[in-house]
Amino acid sequence: MTVDFHSWASHCQTLIENFLDSRLPGTDCVPRRLHQAMRYSVLGGGKRVRPLLAFAAGELSQADVDRVIVVGAAVELIHAYSLVHDDMPCMDDDVLRRGKPTCHIEFDEATALLTGDSLQTLAFELLSEKNLTDDTKTQLGMIKQLARASGSKGMAGGQAFDLDNVGKTLTLPELEFMHIHKTGALIRAAVMLGVHCSNSLNDTQLEKLDHFAKCIGLAFQVVDDLLDAEATTATLGKTAGKDAENNKPTYVSIMGIREARALAEKLQHDADRILNEFGDGAIRLRQVTDFIIKRKF
Amino acid sequence: MTVDFHSWASHCQTLIENFLDSRLPGTDCVPRRLHQAMRYSVLGGGKRVRPLLAFAAGELSQADVDRVIVVGAAVELIHAYSLVHDDMPCMDDDVLRRGKPTCHIEFDEATALLTGDSLQTLAFELLSEKNLTDDTKTQLGMIKQLARASGSKGMAGGQAFDLDNVGKTLTLPELEFMHIHKTGALIRAAVMLGVHCSNSLNDTQLEKLDHFAKCIGLAFQVVDDLLDAEATTATLGKTAGKDAENNKPTYVSIMGIREARALAEKLQHDADRILNEFGDGAIRLRQVTDFIIKRKF
Repeated sequence: MTVDFHSWASHCQTLIENFLDSRLPGTDCVPRRLHQAMRYSVLGGGKRVRPLLAFAAGELSQADVDRVIVVGAAVELIHAYSLVHDDMPCMDDDVLRRGKPTCHIEFDEATALLTGDSLQTLAFELLSEKNLTDDTKTQLGMIKQLARASGSKGMAGGQAFDLDNVGKTLTLPELEFMHIHKTGALIRAAVMLGVHCSNSLNDTQLEKLDHFAKCIGLAFQVVDDLLDAEATTATLGKTAGKDAENNKPTYVSIMGIREARALAEKLQHDADRILNEFGDGAIRLRQVTDFIIKRKF
Repeated sequence: MTVDFHSWASHCQTLIENFLDSRLPGTDCVPRRLHQAMRYSVLGGGKRVRPLLAFAAGELSQADVDRVIVVGAAVELIHAYSLVHDDMPCMDDDVLRRGKPTCHIEFDEATALLTGDSLQTLAFELLSEKNLTDDTKTQLGMIKQLARASGSKGMAGGQAFDLDNVGKTLTLPELEFMHIHKTGALIRAAVMLGVHCSNSLNDTQLEKLDHFAKCIGLAFQVVDDLLDAEATTATLGKTAGKDAENNKPTYVSIMGIREARALAEKLQHDADRILNEFGDGAIRLRQVTDFIIKRKF
């Protein structure tokens, strides 16, 4: 019998937490303050959406869980680094993250800068230190994919595009461009890296899965905008309503809440249609998709 | 006949410049401001000491130059990212680098933050996108080595240790710990990654070369401290005398100029002794070592 989604997700979250805990340098390791800040910024919080996607994708390709843990952790470290830098005064200047003071508030700006830098490095260290595939060339391809998803033509590029356009009116295609980079690229990498831990899928299947990942990457951001517009700071665990306050273009500001919700549902529908072609093997991906679209916090 | 050192170095510098130019996204590529800042921070300046070391080490192991260019560029990108972040107001707060305004002055802080982030990512992208060795496993090992050299137990850790100790009195072993991490680790990676582009050296030789790399990594920093204490801003191309002004512990502040110079010479002697065991194949490494110790700007 298949365990229910929440038990499965909780199990995956524990696996990731334990693995990250074991791979982040201990607070007794010099430089202590940096290692404290790295652990503070990564451990003990977050929904771990990207690792969950990697685990679910790994189930589809019947990949070894011990491998998927590593790629899930690497993607989560990239995500964590981006949050630490994004919260800094020169970026979003945020003081609250996951219900705790942000890294530069709890520590200081210089430490936050080096913390983000070191978390990014650790992600690539993890992807290179043990066999994650049967074929080493595929592993190099996975490292390349994570790098492209994270860099100036991926996540960091999306953040730069975002900054360049604060206070400006974006068209819908421009907003989509921004989010495909800012959040979509890393979500796509989480799915594809999870799948690549096993060679069992053919190229056509990989392409379909990549399309699925694009859909949910975008859906994730639409829901994020909706949550920011609707939620309170208490349920969100970070400062709510910042987007409107900062006059940031969002799906809600361009389309309105009702249309944005309809778009999220359409993207979920597209994603589901692709997953249906994979049958029962895609059950966890279906559940994580559902979790992403319907999350309330 | 072997070409003289300056012609050889100039040729290597051109190769690296052209390769970096070709691999950094163009300024017509969105987000334009980020890509402008990345190119601004990397191209058209610098002695390219780390790539020169990679080239010289590659000559020793008779590695394919096309491979060595890639690892030299990757190491240089890590170095460039660290400079961009290091110059930011929350770190060294410097306004001049290589005779030009620093990245956050020429652009803005947020762009400088994302520029450093993206340069780091590009380094790992370069190391994963084509064959750099005959054996793919060795290539994964090279990525791991660059990650370890750059992260919280390498370069970034050294910077954190440095920040933690501004204004404090360091012992000589503490100062050495700091520099082995802050600059030594990346210099060591430059040598070892260059050598690993070919499998021709045995483990004993690799170990000796690693020891050589540690010696010159430390020598490089001792000379840096000497230059900062002795040079003027004009010859240095960056703000001179900052160390003393910031009350930073340096080899000069702990040992005095005369002793620091003697230490640099001793380290060069140790390095030379190791290189002599490699005979004529090590000529470029010998020349680069000489260049590092005797540089005046």
